[in-house]
Amino acid sequence: MADTAEFIKDLCTPAFVVDLDVAKRNAAVMLDRFQKLGVQLRPHMKTHKTLECADIMTGGSRRCIVVSTLAEASFYADHGYDDVLYAYPLPRDKVQRCAELCERMALFHVLLDNGPALQELKRRPLKQGKLWRVWMKLDCDNGRAGVLHSEPAALQLAREISETTGVELYGIYAHCGNTYGCKGREQIEAIAQETTTNLLQFMERLKAIGIQGLKSSIGSTPSCSHPVPDMAMLSEVHPGNYVFYDVQQSLIGSCRLEDVAVRVLTRVIGHYPHRNQLLVDSGWAALSQDGGGCLPTGYAVIQGHPELKLTSMTQEHGRVEPVSGPLDFGQFPLGSMFSLIPYHACATAMMYPVYSVHSQGKIVSTWKPVRGW
Amino acid sequence: MADTAEFIKDLCTPAFVVDLDVAKRNAAVMLDRFQKLGVQLRPHMKTHKTLECADIMTGGSRRCIVVSTLAEASFYADHGYDDVLYAYPLPRDKVQRCAELCERMALFHVLLDNGPALQELKRRPLKQGKLWRVWMKLDCDNGRAGVLHSEPAALQLAREISETTGVELYGIYAHCGNTYGCKGREQIEAIAQETTTNLLQFMERLKAIGIQGLKSSIGSTPSCSHPVPDMAMLSEVHPGNYVFYDVQQSLIGSCRLEDVAVRVLTRVIGHYPHRNQLLVDSGWAALSQDGGGCLPTGYAVIQGHPELKLTSMTQEHGRVEPVSGPLDFGQFPLGSMFSLIPYHACATAMMYPVYSVHSQGKIVSTWKPVRGW
Repeated sequence: MADTAEFIKDLCTPAFVVDLDVAKRNAAVMLDRFQKLGVQLRPHMKTHKTLECADIMTGGSRRCIVVSTLAEASFYADHGYDDVLYAYPLPRDKVQRCAELCERMALFHVLLDNGPALQELKRRPLKQGKLWRVWMKLDCDNGRAGVLHSEPAALQLAREISETTGVELYGIYAHCGNTYGCKGREQIEAIAQETTTNLLQFMERLKAIGIQGLKSSIGSTPSCSHPVPDMAMLSEVHPGNYVFYDVQQSLIGSCRLEDVAVRVLTRVIGHYPHRNQLLVDSGWAALSQDGGGCLPTGYAVIQGHPELKLTSMTQEHGRVEPVSGPLDFGQFPLGSMFSLIPYHACATAMMYPVYSVHSQGKIVSTWKPVRGW
Repeated sequence: MADTAEFIKDLCTPAFVVDLDVAKRNAAVMLDRFQKLGVQLRPHMKTHKTLECADIMTGGSRRCIVVSTLAEASFYADHGYDDVLYAYPLPRDKVQRCAELCERMALFHVLLDNGPALQELKRRPLKQGKLWRVWMKLDCDNGRAGVLHSEPAALQLAREISETTGVELYGIYAHCGNTYGCKGREQIEAIAQETTTNLLQFMERLKAIGIQGLKSSIGSTPSCSHPVPDMAMLSEVHPGNYVFYDVQQSLIGSCRLEDVAVRVLTRVIGHYPHRNQLLVDSGWAALSQDGGGCLPTGYAVIQGHPELKLTSMTQEHGRVEPVSGPLDFGQFPLGSMFSLIPYHACATAMMYPVYSVHSQGKIVSTWKPVRGW
């Protein structure tokens, strides 16, 4: 996005802006990539949580998505979406809401990684003879949710699910969030390969005990930005962040900085020569604290100004200073604009009740995300 | 709040809950403290951004508040609030919205710390012969916004404001955010004293050049929780966080942990004995990343469980492990609840579209904050 785009001058700041053309390009690349591999893309909605961006990521089909909250699930159901996977360890307090979603949608999927959650499903049979469509979460060395792929308990749970009345074991789901520790394509591919291999070997072990015909899915933006050939043997993938990308993804090696579709626009609101700093109207309320200021340029990349650092933030203020040397205040008059490239788009987007969407230098739309759980 | 309160079992988690009685007590203590000192309390709304909590903090007067965004200002104006101070360095892009608020409210105040902002006000005279009511922001060694109290430019700007047509210099405003670096009452009082002294000396210098009858105001929850006697010479104070308080404030020394009115309720959603961890359904989307996990117990205090640590978070997951030794999983069955005391209530509250408010073990209300700018 050009700093000089016409629409900028009228925008109240801080503002979260989405470059529609870049987002569409990111979405199209991912759709095309997995179409060619013959793998179903089931994009994750957690980054943006909007209807419009979901339409872009699904290529307009309004089918086959992943959500991280039931607020998202209901929102998308209300807008005609279907084939929605709530990819979150099924919490006891949400079984009734999940049941209602199963009953109103053609395809609503849940996920679990333990026996007690399965018992909860059994206790709440679906109406009209419907079956709970269950994915089992497998931990392929990511170390968050999921039954560890190497433990006998994983096969055992899959068997229990497949034998439980009122429930259909539909697929095995693994998240390779450990790609977030990678630097560069080679490391990403190594984890993508390891996750895929672990998952496919688990599918083989399932077959050996007579459980087959299941879907398999892995995801994460890094692995899906650089898929290994073996991923063609999976049924689905479920990345999410890629539609926006961010500085973190560019450092991991998932994308180039030019692929980042979002910015926080912020204005200079104060000059403080005695401490070699200026203030901008973006604090953590506008940017989130993700990254903890770990970049050489602090909490974000200031587009076009690698010599500047967003050093610290309070709720509504950001302090900017030079990486080194004295600040040339004349270059940044009060009221002038900076375009911040967020460290983590998921965290920054979450701070905004509305996104301003632009194309060709003009605001073309505003998107309103769904919030809560 | 008792972990065993009846209302808890039906609440979907994560949930942000406010103990109404504790919040009312915190508000009453602060109102009473400054009434006795003869100083006007002008509470800041930025922590909660709700109508109901504003009513509690203003003792029902619906007058005399501070806001950090124009979204807050409009929200409170819509609900019959007046005498509202937008205590933020006046950004050029918001002059027109400020003018409209001045024209619709009896008393809407703005704040500035530089000449160009003053020129913006001059260029947009108010209708009906109204004057812009301006506070000048003074930096009393906090090091964020404000003209530095010791610089000649401070007196110079005050004079310019007071001589500008269409504008009234109404008061001098200082924020002692540097109290957030304090440990204990003695350090807080030292900064409260220093800020007060600097501000009062500045008022004297103004008098000496013929500028008098101005209001003076300092704020921050730590300094207003332990005011020094000289603060009785101020016109106003403007703390905000105190209605909720949080772990950070208890560590600074502003309050006891029992004074913290808010919690994030979260459920156990997974047991992972192979890595001595359990998962809860609160990630940074539910808690914010404020504090960066600096506590001995990580990103929050887990009420009643000083032996546990919220080690790391992703968007919707939190990893909990023992501070040391093996985890007794039997003590924390799947679905059981933890009550997290937030590190920074302002940051945590901002993650929620709705707060559940309880009293005497029952949910009595839900509050909806205003978001955006």
